[in-house]
Amino acid sequence: MKASEIATLLAANFTGPDLEITSAAAIDAATPSEIAFAAKPAALAAPSQAGCLIVPANLPSEITRPPHQAWIPASDPRTAFAQVAAALHPPLLPAIGVHPSATVAPEAQIGEGSRIGPGCVVGAHVTIGRDCVLHSNVTLYPGVTLGDRVILHAGAVLGADGFGFVFRNGRYEKFPQIGRVEIGNDVEIGANSCIDRAALGVTRIGDGTKLDNMVHIGHNCQIGRHVVIAAQTGLSGGVTVGDYAVIGGQVGIGDKARIESGVVLGSGSGVLTSKIVRKGAEPLWGTPARPLREYLTQLAAFSKLPSILRRLEKLEKK
Amino acid sequence: MKASEIATLLAANFTGPDLEITSAAAIDAATPSEIAFAAKPAALAAPSQAGCLIVPANLPSEITRPPHQAWIPASDPRTAFAQVAAALHPPLLPAIGVHPSATVAPEAQIGEGSRIGPGCVVGAHVTIGRDCVLHSNVTLYPGVTLGDRVILHAGAVLGADGFGFVFRNGRYEKFPQIGRVEIGNDVEIGANSCIDRAALGVTRIGDGTKLDNMVHIGHNCQIGRHVVIAAQTGLSGGVTVGDYAVIGGQVGIGDKARIESGVVLGSGSGVLTSKIVRKGAEPLWGTPARPLREYLTQLAAFSKLPSILRRLEKLEKK
Amino acid sequence: MKASEIATLLAANFTGPDLEITSAAAIDAATPSEIAFAAKPAALAAPSQAGCLIVPANLPSEITRPPHQAWIPASDPRTAFAQVAAALHPPLLPAIGVHPSATVAPEAQIGEGSRIGPGCVVGAHVTIGRDCVLHSNVTLYPGVTLGDRVILHAGAVLGADGFGFVFRNGRYEKFPQIGRVEIGNDVEIGANSCIDRAALGVTRIGDGTKLDNMVHIGHNCQIGRHVVIAAQTGLSGGVTVGDYAVIGGQVGIGDKARIESGVVLGSGSGVLTSKIVRKGAEPLWGTPARPLREYLTQLAAFSKLPSILRRLEKLEKK
Repeated sequence: MKASEIATLLAANFTGPDLEITSAAAIDAATPSEIAFAAKPAALAAPSQAGCLIVPANLPSEITRPPHQAWIPASDPRTAFAQVAAALHPPLLPAIGVHPSATVAPEAQIGEGSRIGPGCVVGAHVTIGRDCVLHSNVTLYPGVTLGDRVILHAGAVLGADGFGFVFRNGRYEKFPQIGRVEIGNDVEIGANSCIDRAALGVTRIGDGTKLDNMVHIGHNCQIGRHVVIAAQTGLSGGVTVGDYAVIGGQVGIGDKARIESGVVLGSGSGVLTSKIVRKGAEPLWGTPARPLREYLTQLAAFSKLPSILRRLEKLEKK
Repeated sequence: MKASEIATLLAANFTGPDLEITSAAAIDAATPSEIAFAAKPAALAAPSQAGCLIVPANLPSEITRPPHQAWIPASDPRTAFAQVAAALHPPLLPAIGVHPSATVAPEAQIGEGSRIGPGCVVGAHVTIGRDCVLHSNVTLYPGVTLGDRVILHAGAVLGADGFGFVFRNGRYEKFPQIGRVEIGNDVEIGANSCIDRAALGVTRIGDGTKLDNMVHIGHNCQIGRHVVIAAQTGLSGGVTVGDYAVIGGQVGIGDKARIESGVVLGSGSGVLTSKIVRKGAEPLWGTPARPLREYLTQLAAFSKLPSILRRLEKLEKK
Repeated sequence: MKASEIATLLAANFTGPDLEITSAAAIDAATPSEIAFAAKPAALAAPSQAGCLIVPANLPSEITRPPHQAWIPASDPRTAFAQVAAALHPPLLPAIGVHPSATVAPEAQIGEGSRIGPGCVVGAHVTIGRDCVLHSNVTLYPGVTLGDRVILHAGAVLGADGFGFVFRNGRYEKFPQIGRVEIGNDVEIGANSCIDRAALGVTRIGDGTKLDNMVHIGHNCQIGRHVVIAAQTGLSGGVTVGDYAVIGGQVGIGDKARIESGVVLGSGSGVLTSKIVRKGAEPLWGTPARPLREYLTQLAAFSKLPSILRRLEKLEKK
């Protein structure tokens, strides 16, 4: 793509040489045939070899374009760059249809444009919407439902039995896990993540929600829309997460806890069983989760604990 | 099934209309063609549309059956319901035998009634008992042994090399991982869980033990009978867990630690290397694991730490 | 192998009967046809039935060889034993070449002697070096590069999209993940681990580095040479880890943190976003990571917190 074509794609102006741009790169690594972006004016302080830069709109006049470089101003350079990079680098996906090494139950329904990659297993009565991508070795147990444009990364497992047993006569017997899994539109689920089916009813993940790698979603969880959950986080059974919540990595959430809409939960936090976590002015952190500043103050005091103990003993002697 | 047939299955009485029941559901979602259960009398306070309810035996006489509903009394309604739900909803399992897309070494032995799902890989000298279920894409490395009625969920990996190296001349060299994995009868292992082979000897999981998703069992661990381990918990090498222990999610247990029989370890707990954790009057929690009430008191005091510090400074000034 | 042949393999002496040795075992479980090792003289205190023992060189003269047993002295018995065990128990690996059930893109390049196991998926433009082993159901997304002698355990996923989105108009849009993954020589990666591709540029793992099961390496991480990372640890995006670092299990490391060469990070530790962790005199532990002794002192004080609170109140009353 020429720089001018990129500007057209973004419905933006461009100034400078109309170079041929073949790929997208980071600003400090880009070459004359590459495009990069400067998120903020400060990112323009160091020289870049990029042939084309997406720069913040309304730059102060003292920041000037070097002659070897095309500039395209954008109100949000990161988003504009994402759009250009996607155009320059269409992802290599499994082919549309079912890969010959995949196993698809005859009763499964697969929407138009969807891609079922090598080694995938699609169980009976599964419904897959349009334009979905199942990367390699994904398993959908019987009865799982996917919306449109869902992306499942390699090794993801949807619909395995929830972890529910009844204890009788000195042994655990399986409590039937006969519910379903329903995934909304535009959901992305990371590699080797697991979404368990409901015991009764439905485990549900709302439209636009994004899960990272190795996330565990227990039976009967209800995850809202446009939620983000980072890697290795685990939700026990029956957890509710409201729309637009943001949950960090390695978070643990106990049975039937409720994370309200818009809550931001820092990495490594813990939420006890049945707790309700409300949106506050700042992100929440720690176990049990509390406002970030509070947590940091407590953490700082924690490191003073041995000295607190000594000072207390000294006072007591007096 | 008619309500009367369900009562016969449970060797119980029933009162009310002998409706046709087609599926099992939660009490608040059940329809007239569905059966549900009330674990406690209080669960009967809200009206339910269920056509049939399993209710606690010996209900107080002021709680009366609505005319549209059949009631079946049971001493343990949850267990009775589990039995009925299993009869109404036989799980959709891989077919008995080996799925054509699975890869089974010629030397492997597979017991009668066992099901090897699509994409599974069963290595040389593996022994699988009777009536086992391997869901999709399970890997059994060479030499793994399964008892009878073992259930392995999709993506589980049994028998990968333990994590053992010797450091020599500035680099890590593999310490041979030549031991085995032995899984008892009636064990269930969750999706994407990993059970490593022993370096020497055996990694063993006892009869009736249940593991959730993404659990890591290191080399040479000895897990007893009827143990429960929730999702994302990790056991380092050589850990011993006694019978009937209950271990929450995201717990970390250090090398060669010993968890004694009947111990209950709360989610997110940590056990340091070589520690012995003894059964106490209450569950254990935290890092290092301590009695729950103690842990909660300490946690509450932790949140007062900044104020403790201020008050101490005030006293010191006096 | 005869004991004398084992001694020759190790370029060592041997004394005692020249028995036929068929396998390797632990010292307390070994039989007369097995070889074991004593890491320290003290390990010789209890009698062993082993037919052959590798013992520490320069044993005190009061420790004498029992007549039924061959002894082979070695300066590092564990390493010598590893060498013998590897010779006695050549691992059962997938055959050299591509298993018929694997899916390999035509553009992929696979070096001589490499083994692609059942169910593996090797994407377009992947380069695999010599003598690599991909166990079952491994996925290499397009463009991944492996060095020589790399071992990938079952279910590992390399090159899935990093977890990067831009938030626009109330929804998350994928930030293109168009970078690569480069794995050095002699790297071993555990079962079900995930190494994400870079957003731009490269996610890199250096020569000789060993990862345990279910480790998560986010996009754009730069892991050095001869690093060890135990099970279930997660690195967020853009983390740098220096050579010879040792990272325990279930550690969480925030975005763009830097772990310097030789740092030892205890299991369950947490490193906050953008932090730099420097090598100290002792291992680091806790969240945020601090010297082990400091951490243990603070942990001990933590358990005294409720009593500190009571004692403080008592002083205040005076």
